[in-house]
Amino acid sequence: MIFGAILAGGTGTRMDLENLPKQFLPLGEKPILIHTLEKFCLCTQLDAIYVGAHGDWVNHTQDLIENHGLSGYDIHVVAGGDSRNQTIINILEAIEADHGASDEHIVVTHDSVRPFVKLSIIEANIAAAKAHPACDTVIPATDTIVRSDETGEFISEIPTRDRMYQGQTPQSFKISLFKQIYSDMDEQTRSVLTDACKVFVEAGYPVHLVAGDVTNIKLTTIMDYKIAQAMIESRVIDQ
Amino acid sequence: MIFGAILAGGTGTRMDLENLPKQFLPLGEKPILIHTLEKFCLCTQLDAIYVGAHGDWVNHTQDLIENHGLSGYDIHVVAGGDSRNQTIINILEAIEADHGASDEHIVVTHDSVRPFVKLSIIEANIAAAKAHPACDTVIPATDTIVRSDETGEFISEIPTRDRMYQGQTPQSFKISLFKQIYSDMDEQTRSVLTDACKVFVEAGYPVHLVAGDVTNIKLTTIMDYKIAQAMIESRVIDQ
Repeated sequence: MIFGAILAGGTGTRMDLENLPKQFLPLGEKPILIHTLEKFCLCTQLDAIYVGAHGDWVNHTQDLIENHGLSGYDIHVVAGGDSRNQTIINILEAIEADHGASDEHIVVTHDSVRPFVKLSIIEANIAAAKAHPACDTVIPATDTIVRSDETGEFISEIPTRDRMYQGQTPQSFKISLFKQIYSDMDEQTRSVLTDACKVFVEAGYPVHLVAGDVTNIKLTTIMDYKIAQAMIESRVIDQ
Repeated sequence: MIFGAILAGGTGTRMDLENLPKQFLPLGEKPILIHTLEKFCLCTQLDAIYVGAHGDWVNHTQDLIENHGLSGYDIHVVAGGDSRNQTIINILEAIEADHGASDEHIVVTHDSVRPFVKLSIIEANIAAAKAHPACDTVIPATDTIVRSDETGEFISEIPTRDRMYQGQTPQSFKISLFKQIYSDMDEQTRSVLTDACKVFVEAGYPVHLVAGDVTNIKLTTIMDYKIAQAMIESRVIDQ
């Protein structure tokens, strides 16, 4: 079976607007999270969608889903954990509680604050996660990438740009394999490997690349939020 | 002495609008290049500003400078070369023809299509290029950076994010040192080292980091162009 997992566990907001975590901020006519959820609802290959929300915001998230006409979809809100990967683990455990464990189960994890993801990217993720242990959505680096070790004061390396990519989400993978690798890791390793695909890379599993899109931006800062509003208002992006 | 160098040598445009190279496209009330030039005109530490334009567009560039009220500034338009670094070399030779050679001369090179650069960033570049052989303007990587060698199909490495930066411009350096390193390189090396700061890094000189800004975006694609228009219309950026 194939599951969507929307990671909405954050409570802080670098945007600090209206005391709402940023995934709940309005964008056009609805909250960012609802934009994101709607993209996943469009994907008929998904058997169910799980949203990982902070415990304090589970009820609010459920209310939003009802109030925006999405209660007809198979959407479950799960309390998230202290870290991104722990929120993923909580979702995976909810999936297995509801649907049982299977080596064939695939999850498509996605940032709640990337509302402009396209259906075609979700579908490409599903295809890649069927064929490989995991996949990561990336775009070729548009900027020159610079590495600076230790002090952050001087350049250590400017790697060849055509080998460098900027990671987006979704990140998709076989559920049982992720759980196995993660349970074998010690706390120290877990605290360093905050990226689900990096968990696979460090464990030696091949992670396939899926082509993302420049419009699939992550809304992290107030600047990103304003750009997203401008993108919708100027019809760079259709709602 | 301290010189500005605006790199406007491109003729192609991935935007393909109005048959104009993208630096000449309108943004709000004036061309992108004029936005950029105005930021450099604000910097009183600069002794002169050079613009490297493709030979076919030198006259057009000179006309724009006159028509937008910038003829009172010490701005020179120079024919660019076949590559970014060759355009820089052409500008450096024009500077030395006008002002003589000196080990103290500094140049602040900047993409013509980064119109939102701030005066404070230009000033920080000048300070860093006085103290060091060269400096590069960067922001901490907002996305996870992914390296994929050879095929571009699988992830080779996900480097630790807090060591990774996204390069912007200005890139600023001692003129005589750059000319010396560049003249010692063979054609093969030159064709690979398309980034001026990488020329310094590969030659073993320390390149200092200067803090850029998320608004200092490079307008490369039609999407960037629309975002820039939206940023101006929505007053994310003041003109």
